[in-house]
Amino acid sequence: MRDLMAITQRPDVISLAGGQPDTSTFPPESYAALMGRIAAESTARALQYGPTDGMAAVKDCIVEVMAREDMRVDPDDVLVTTGGQQVIDLMCKTFVDPGDVIVAEAPTYPGAVPSFAAYQADVVQVAMDADGMRIDELEDLLDRLEREGRRPKFVYTVPSFQNPAGVTMALERRRRLVAIAHERELLVLEDNPYSLLRYEGDPVPTLQSLDGGNFVVYLGTFSKILSAGIRLGWAVAPAPIIEKMNLGKQGVDLCSSSMTQLFVAEYFREGRWMEYVASLRELYRRRRDAMLDALAEHFPREAEWTYPQGGMFLWATLPDYIDTTDLLARALQEKVAFVPGRAAYLDGRGGSSMRLNFSGVGEDDIREGIRRIGKVVREQVGLYDTLTGAAQAATEPAPAPEDTAEVLHLPRREPGKRDARRGA
Amino acid sequence: MRDLMAITQRPDVISLAGGQPDTSTFPPESYAALMGRIAAESTARALQYGPTDGMAAVKDCIVEVMAREDMRVDPDDVLVTTGGQQVIDLMCKTFVDPGDVIVAEAPTYPGAVPSFAAYQADVVQVAMDADGMRIDELEDLLDRLEREGRRPKFVYTVPSFQNPAGVTMALERRRRLVAIAHERELLVLEDNPYSLLRYEGDPVPTLQSLDGGNFVVYLGTFSKILSAGIRLGWAVAPAPIIEKMNLGKQGVDLCSSSMTQLFVAEYFREGRWMEYVASLRELYRRRRDAMLDALAEHFPREAEWTYPQGGMFLWATLPDYIDTTDLLARALQEKVAFVPGRAAYLDGRGGSSMRLNFSGVGEDDIREGIRRIGKVVREQVGLYDTLTGAAQAATEPAPAPEDTAEVLHLPRREPGKRDARRGA
Repeated sequence: MRDLMAITQRPDVISLAGGQPDTSTFPPESYAALMGRIAAESTARALQYGPTDGMAAVKDCIVEVMAREDMRVDPDDVLVTTGGQQVIDLMCKTFVDPGDVIVAEAPTYPGAVPSFAAYQADVVQVAMDADGMRIDELEDLLDRLEREGRRPKFVYTVPSFQNPAGVTMALERRRRLVAIAHERELLVLEDNPYSLLRYEGDPVPTLQSLDGGNFVVYLGTFSKILSAGIRLGWAVAPAPIIEKMNLGKQGVDLCSSSMTQLFVAEYFREGRWMEYVASLRELYRRRRDAMLDALAEHFPREAEWTYPQGGMFLWATLPDYIDTTDLLARALQEKVAFVPGRAAYLDGRGGSSMRLNFSGVGEDDIREGIRRIGKVVREQVGLYDTLTGAAQAATEPAPAPEDTAEVLHLPRREPGKRDARRGA
Repeated sequence: MRDLMAITQRPDVISLAGGQPDTSTFPPESYAALMGRIAAESTARALQYGPTDGMAAVKDCIVEVMAREDMRVDPDDVLVTTGGQQVIDLMCKTFVDPGDVIVAEAPTYPGAVPSFAAYQADVVQVAMDADGMRIDELEDLLDRLEREGRRPKFVYTVPSFQNPAGVTMALERRRRLVAIAHERELLVLEDNPYSLLRYEGDPVPTLQSLDGGNFVVYLGTFSKILSAGIRLGWAVAPAPIIEKMNLGKQGVDLCSSSMTQLFVAEYFREGRWMEYVASLRELYRRRRDAMLDALAEHFPREAEWTYPQGGMFLWATLPDYIDTTDLLARALQEKVAFVPGRAAYLDGRGGSSMRLNFSGVGEDDIREGIRRIGKVVREQVGLYDTLTGAAQAATEPAPAPEDTAEVLHLPRREPGKRDARRGA
């Protein structure tokens, strides 16, 4: 991931690898005006340490964001963190000893993998389909672990527009997951950076709102609705957990940046943050559509991919004889990057899949980037066909999806225009 | 510490507890101008993720600061971190498993205590005197640990104007410590936030410069020379260690704030950062003198304290029948705060000592704060004298310093005006 992040900085590479929001739409004159007001009123505060749990004014902004998710949150139950990533780290710091079990989705957020690994957690991943985590498989897993005398420290999920898969957990599954958490007194970490970035369909309640804040720890962030460069996220959790995470945060970085916290507070005071989110939604919806169109045009018929109703990512799966880690090296020669699927697993699976980001670059670059990836994929398919013999390939059926069942398959992809070319 | 930090936010309390720089001297018009330039040139970058290891422009600033410490640093050996605190966390994350030994000074930086505790380190503390860590005691300890088959993961030291004790490690001891590190292939974490804040005496080389970057990991920060609210520090270390810490940082917070990094880069471009540091030096020197004078005036003759040549703190020790944790509760009623000595130990020692900060508030508040603490200390001394009997106290000698040898004693306090009243 380190090299990948460095590559995303290179101007000649089209990166579909990162999780970047597009920050070019934020007006520089607003930025200057905001900062001018902070300078006039609070320079000394901006440059000073703040309270470990965050500034009260920022907690008020967070309560406002949560209200847009139909959540009523008490500021005392909020911990301001250095990005949403810090919530994952603090959850592990608070709860995980080496060898402890964390349950995650398969695939899971690639950025959580080094966090979990640093705490030497035993991460068990549960399959997903187009409706998100398979709760029936989760229950089987929990039963099995219980028989082994092992109790997961928490279930980690990105229920809306999942990173990396792009799928959303259906309401019924959410209710069931929350019920399981209550029945088994099991913590759930709901990582929810994207749900205000919905491009179609009806909103689904958060796990935290269904749970009432008993067993669900909620992770939110300003990264995707305002700025990733301010490094501000938050946790919402019952007071005893917030207290433990607060203690952990003291040891980790004392407090989050006062300078960037004042920026958020001043920005929200203008009262137009939802307009900006609406503009991002419109921008990213068009980019998603551009990516779906380009995939249909440039990827071979052997490939499949998910249909995200929001967020920033989709997940494409190639024939299992293609290794996307190897493919990336070839793609970089063509000046295009993606995240190889293996980064989203802790056990080496995902080798034929890739995560594609559609928020970070413009539509033209998306089309060109997908064209380039499509080119190297077709090369690999062609090479395979040559090696195995075109004649044999023509007479034998292609491997069924079940043969590569370790990665997410989505036969229930939404029908319609963006899919139409796939049957052609 | 959490409650203490909250208390420092209360305007009616004189806090000598925090580690705050005085940020009120930074000109708001400079802040606005800097931000205006960032807005014009780099709004999108300020709001975006950056590379995990930090922006190249910030590394250049760090190289410049290091040059002022007579250190020649390669930007590739630098990791930009979210405050210096994160270096401590990442060192533990990289090297410490539960039960591993870390060697620290006695007393040690109170903010390192929750970091070490979170990794379940076994922290062994080595005594200090006016010349810093007792290297002879360190060698005895290392020999003892070796016999037990235990190898410390690193030695943690704040060699210059130590937090909390205010003392500075003498050059001979620095050379010896570096030699020991080489002989025993032992890592040293040099935490050096204050050394540019020297008010008198000659600079002493950093451990890192004496070592040449082989066994010393250097921790630096902008917190004390520019701003704590930007949450930016750095590590300088050999490449393999930087790589491991970089991986840890990915899991912890992905990257440090782009917004605050651009602030630093733009600020250094003005070329006047050393002038600002010089103004802080002058300000803090006067405050240190005010505190030393006030201590001589208001503390009872049974108390003693260190004489810092720089930095932000001194360490006062009261008769051993006074518990400074209890005393703090009484002091807060008088609207004044300090850090009880026990916060600087992991084993309950330090109960009669306190850390006093002289950088965060003005001279008048320092004098008034010390007067208030002196008042509650005198109450305790009076109460003790009454309970034990004034007659007995008059005929028996006071306990010798050796009787409370668990805490730092400094018979070698600098002579001169600020001490003169103590004999009166």
